Amino acid sequence: MNVGIIGLGYWGPNLVRNFLANKDVKSLWGCDLNVARLKSIEGKFPSVKLTPNTDEILLNKDIDIVVIATPVQYHFDLAKKALENGKHIWVEKPFTSTSVQAEELIQLAEKKKLVIFVDHTFIYTGAVRKIKELIDKKVLGDVIYFDSVRVNLGLFQHDVNVIWDLACHDLSIMDYILNKKVVAISANGIANYYEHENIAHLAIYFENNCFAHFHVSWTSPVKIRRVLIGGKNKMLVWDDMLPTEKVKIYDSGVELDSPEEIHKILVQYRTGDMFSPKLNETEALAMGVKEFLASIQEHRRPLTGAYEGLKVVKILEAAEKSIKKRGELVEISGF
Amino acid sequence: MNVGIIGLGYWGPNLVRNFLANKDVKSLWGCDLNVARLKSIEGKFPSVKLTPNTDEILLNKDIDIVVIATPVQYHFDLAKKALENGKHIWVEKPFTSTSVQAEELIQLAEKKKLVIFVDHTFIYTGAVRKIKELIDKKVLGDVIYFDSVRVNLGLFQHDVNVIWDLACHDLSIMDYILNKKVVAISANGIANYYEHENIAHLAIYFENNCFAHFHVSWTSPVKIRRVLIGGKNKMLVWDDMLPTEKVKIYDSGVELDSPEEIHKILVQYRTGDMFSPKLNETEALAMGVKEFLASIQEHRRPLTGAYEGLKVVKILEAAEKSIKKRGELVEISGF
Amino acid sequence: MNVGIIGLGYWGPNLVRNFLANKDVKSLWGCDLNVARLKSIEGKFPSVKLTPNTDEILLNKDIDIVVIATPVQYHFDLAKKALENGKHIWVEKPFTSTSVQAEELIQLAEKKKLVIFVDHTFIYTGAVRKIKELIDKKVLGDVIYFDSVRVNLGLFQHDVNVIWDLACHDLSIMDYILNKKVVAISANGIANYYEHENIAHLAIYFENNCFAHFHVSWTSPVKIRRVLIGGKNKMLVWDDMLPTEKVKIYDSGVELDSPEEIHKILVQYRTGDMFSPKLNETEALAMGVKEFLASIQEHRRPLTGAYEGLKVVKILEAAEKSIKKRGELVEISGF
Amino acid sequence: MNVGIIGLGYWGPNLVRNFLANKDVKSLWGCDLNVARLKSIEGKFPSVKLTPNTDEILLNKDIDIVVIATPVQYHFDLAKKALENGKHIWVEKPFTSTSVQAEELIQLAEKKKLVIFVDHTFIYTGAVRKIKELIDKKVLGDVIYFDSVRVNLGLFQHDVNVIWDLACHDLSIMDYILNKKVVAISANGIANYYEHENIAHLAIYFENNCFAHFHVSWTSPVKIRRVLIGGKNKMLVWDDMLPTEKVKIYDSGVELDSPEEIHKILVQYRTGDMFSPKLNETEALAMGVKEFLASIQEHRRPLTGAYEGLKVVKILEAAEKSIKKRGELVEISGF
Repeated sequence: MNVGIIGLGYWGPNLVRNFLANKDVKSLWGCDLNVARLKSIEGKFPSVKLTPNTDEILLNKDIDIVVIATPVQYHFDLAKKALENGKHIWVEKPFTSTSVQAEELIQLAEKKKLVIFVDHTFIYTGAVRKIKELIDKKVLGDVIYFDSVRVNLGLFQHDVNVIWDLACHDLSIMDYILNKKVVAISANGIANYYEHENIAHLAIYFENNCFAHFHVSWTSPVKIRRVLIGGKNKMLVWDDMLPTEKVKIYDSGVELDSPEEIHKILVQYRTGDMFSPKLNETEALAMGVKEFLASIQEHRRPLTGAYEGLKVVKILEAAEKSIKKRGELVEISGF
Repeated sequence: MNVGIIGLGYWGPNLVRNFLANKDVKSLWGCDLNVARLKSIEGKFPSVKLTPNTDEILLNKDIDIVVIATPVQYHFDLAKKALENGKHIWVEKPFTSTSVQAEELIQLAEKKKLVIFVDHTFIYTGAVRKIKELIDKKVLGDVIYFDSVRVNLGLFQHDVNVIWDLACHDLSIMDYILNKKVVAISANGIANYYEHENIAHLAIYFENNCFAHFHVSWTSPVKIRRVLIGGKNKMLVWDDMLPTEKVKIYDSGVELDSPEEIHKILVQYRTGDMFSPKLNETEALAMGVKEFLASIQEHRRPLTGAYEGLKVVKILEAAEKSIKKRGELVEISGF
Repeated sequence: MNVGIIGLGYWGPNLVRNFLANKDVKSLWGCDLNVARLKSIEGKFPSVKLTPNTDEILLNKDIDIVVIATPVQYHFDLAKKALENGKHIWVEKPFTSTSVQAEELIQLAEKKKLVIFVDHTFIYTGAVRKIKELIDKKVLGDVIYFDSVRVNLGLFQHDVNVIWDLACHDLSIMDYILNKKVVAISANGIANYYEHENIAHLAIYFENNCFAHFHVSWTSPVKIRRVLIGGKNKMLVWDDMLPTEKVKIYDSGVELDSPEEIHKILVQYRTGDMFSPKLNETEALAMGVKEFLASIQEHRRPLTGAYEGLKVVKILEAAEKSIKKRGELVEISGF
Repeated sequence: MNVGIIGLGYWGPNLVRNFLANKDVKSLWGCDLNVARLKSIEGKFPSVKLTPNTDEILLNKDIDIVVIATPVQYHFDLAKKALENGKHIWVEKPFTSTSVQAEELIQLAEKKKLVIFVDHTFIYTGAVRKIKELIDKKVLGDVIYFDSVRVNLGLFQHDVNVIWDLACHDLSIMDYILNKKVVAISANGIANYYEHENIAHLAIYFENNCFAHFHVSWTSPVKIRRVLIGGKNKMLVWDDMLPTEKVKIYDSGVELDSPEEIHKILVQYRTGDMFSPKLNETEALAMGVKEFLASIQEHRRPLTGAYEGLKVVKILEAAEKSIKKRGELVEISGF
């Protein structure tokens, strides 16, 4: 396979390194409008062919795969042209700026029998894969809530608010792990510095009495990345800031006594042992590249494909709408 | 002063111990319908005069002060009768079940020139007093957000949801520290086990671009009690689960370059030193009792009086309304 | 059983409370030379009979048990007189000032068929009992090292150094858990403020290639109470400063490849899952009182008796000798 | 300056990268007997000239500086030959296998007016430089103890024990920070797996009532890297495992009342505020390379030169002697 990467900014060197390291990648092209970035890649990875011209990638007959790592506003045009020219595509998160764009790309790819991969990198971490495994094995029992915090003192984005920048990760993780139907969202937050919100809180309602909440911020003095998942049997904490023992499962829960007598109901809790499984430490991006290439070879959808990207974009769109109206409930359909 | 305490449940022994320890308290009466509780207090505090009959407290001419530590639904009737009989009153949090009740008690107390103290205990902790001092000295600069988390695996209440049980504390702390005008609230959450919510998220909007958020839960496998306060100059973290160094102030913040050119705006952050002040470790309840007795002697309002109690009840009422409509914005007036 | 307690200082109220709470204790006497302490006990526990005269305890025919909670220098004389007068005795740690004293008390008690209990309280905590259970079930495999740290900013003792004050706890824990033969000790440390050492390090050598180390200090800015236990199969960490999950067992270890070719030996390590068992939270002192009374009724040695006390005193004596000669190895016999 | 690096194992790529990045380095040679390592460096750093023959480095007239990054047993021969051929040398820690070797190299370098740099990398970290600054500014007051723990589940070395592998770092840090005269050492530990100790404890005595202790282990289930420094005024904790706030200074200490009456002495402690300074995050190795090149250009000794290397080797030699005799005190002269 020959691969062309458009956009060599912050994430670019990681993409170059991981595609180069995959044995199924024969040669690699790179493209960026910024000459300094091209120079930098040249110094570190002398084998990459570099160009400032996107068409040298998009129209290049030797290239099978186009990786799109630009700001989100350019995703749609580049992705469309790549698909039209018969390329499989890898698109950075978030997939597109609107769900309409995402749906158009999905139709185009299906018509052309091409693969769309959306880089929801966290899905390929040892932590998320282990959590998914535990949920699928019913270790936690029915999930009743999902609570996520991702805050730090972070670089503001010029073009999008903190929801599009950070919540995007957690929404993809939540959708992968829970696999439940989202029905509505209420979002609150504040823009303290310029037009885009730097703090946001998303409350998500599901079918069947499950609830999720996401707290994201660029303005926290401390860095917190923690997910709590409540199951009917056990509860899980994933603290991604810990160097080891990131995932802990607590044999804790809530017990209902005599639920038939609603007025005398006695809700109690119990606590038990905790265990923390060893996690696979393979780099997530390497796993993502492997899954993408395998999905092309096997003519199947990848684990994180266009539909997964679309679902996240639908929630982001709804959250944007809700936060502008200070928490107004926005329904999400077709999930 | 002679004091009568009505309600000797979970918090009762602490009230008895702290009123007994205050040198201005001459004698103490205790009242509870539950005989086992009366026995228990008798064993530990043999000097307390005990009765199962509230009128022996409320109508007792020797008693100057009535402490009301029953479930919230009984606060109003007991408080009213105590005031009518000329007693100063101490009421456990939350002050009353409705803001209408609170306002009626305020008028009655003013007419009778009696003191109402609401037991927002946290206001009297070393941590909150130090934070207030730092805010008042402008160490943090203008506060732009207040973020609070109080979650654990906790005993469900029969009569109220987790907002009335737990958020109550954090709302009183926020109001004391920020002293800002609340204008609206949006609340989300879920009731997984019975009619009352066990998880809730409150988003509060203020005049002048400040925002607060409160996360409370009875169903978290880990206990978290943490407040983040973002100022224009510095940021503060209060982690109440730490045995020491509970309050940390970070010389961190966000810098705006060239704010006049909104499209080229550059928002950056800086990080600097951190310091953690030594906190006064006097028991908060002892400080509360002292403040209450002093306010009676000095014919003044206490630090946590009926108006402070009313403000918290107004927010709780609005939160209840909003959470039932999944985040619908509820305005709060007369703050 | 009737119990008399001599010494009502720091630990006294806990002893009074726990003996009073035990259903086999009929009445309780208390004794202290300090009138303020007697007053304080009287206020809190009005049923206790108080006296400043030790003979009213030691010679009292109604008393079956004498609890000795004075500074260690008075243990021997009081214990001897109590045994001579036919009392079972409870002695606070450390048992005696010298091993000769301990041996004399042991002989006396055996002659009189009386029980000696030494208050190695930590043996009765949920953590130590769980660790013992795990070791006995061979979960860790052969233990190869025991490492203990107990440091904080602590009150200096007038009469003894930090080894007698703090290491005493850890030595009793180590002896209970490992149940191995100590052969020699090397101790180092420093006395920065007055004649007694405020920092000490004890290295203990056992039969059969096992090693233990104890770090104790009254002059650490942070409080650390942590034990590491290395087994051939698994390793354990007990962090007593954590509010929960104090004990963690790591499925980690060291693997030897081809140990027959010593020069090409390859020592590697592996890491696996971790688990943290739920611990019994019953107060240790209540468990100790229960064990003591049971041992009297059942005419048997208690879990922490005179022999256990003697072993700890022997190590303390040897450590004292070694530290004065800066680490000189001191052999310990008759263990 | 032209630089030749001998030994391209674990630390090799870091040395290559940092010398290449320094603007005073014109060209770089690399040497290793292991062909796989040469290939690996070639792939990552195509500009480096590679050879398996040490003489192509040592006898090369174009090379000004030889970097020796082999196992310690080869340091002396390579260093001697490099100096004899007029090269300035950089030697990895520990400097040499014996103090006699170190002294011979020192004499040779002085005769030839060449610079010897010993890579005590930690001296160039932001944490150590900040601690040194605080000590020099008398913020802590007179230092009375230095306590260091460096334990983890680590790769065993074939040729040396855990003291030579790990304590080496902490001894160089201690010497740099305290700058006090060491007089004697007592070391204890155990070799559980093969002839070299995997756990060791070093106690160091200084002139003037100061004490240091070092705990190193390859067999701890958890990774701990923590230094406590006790001053007469303040105390410091450096926890190198924390992602931020690694260094904390506590306004805590011990107070002596009426020291003239030694039997009634009252030693108390006080606790106050804590602060944590922001640390420089420049890579330590880059700072080391800069210091080395500057010392050559300025014809002066580097911050971590041969004398600093010799002092560490003297302590390591003494520790080795002491540990074999289970803590026997070994005096250290000529410090």
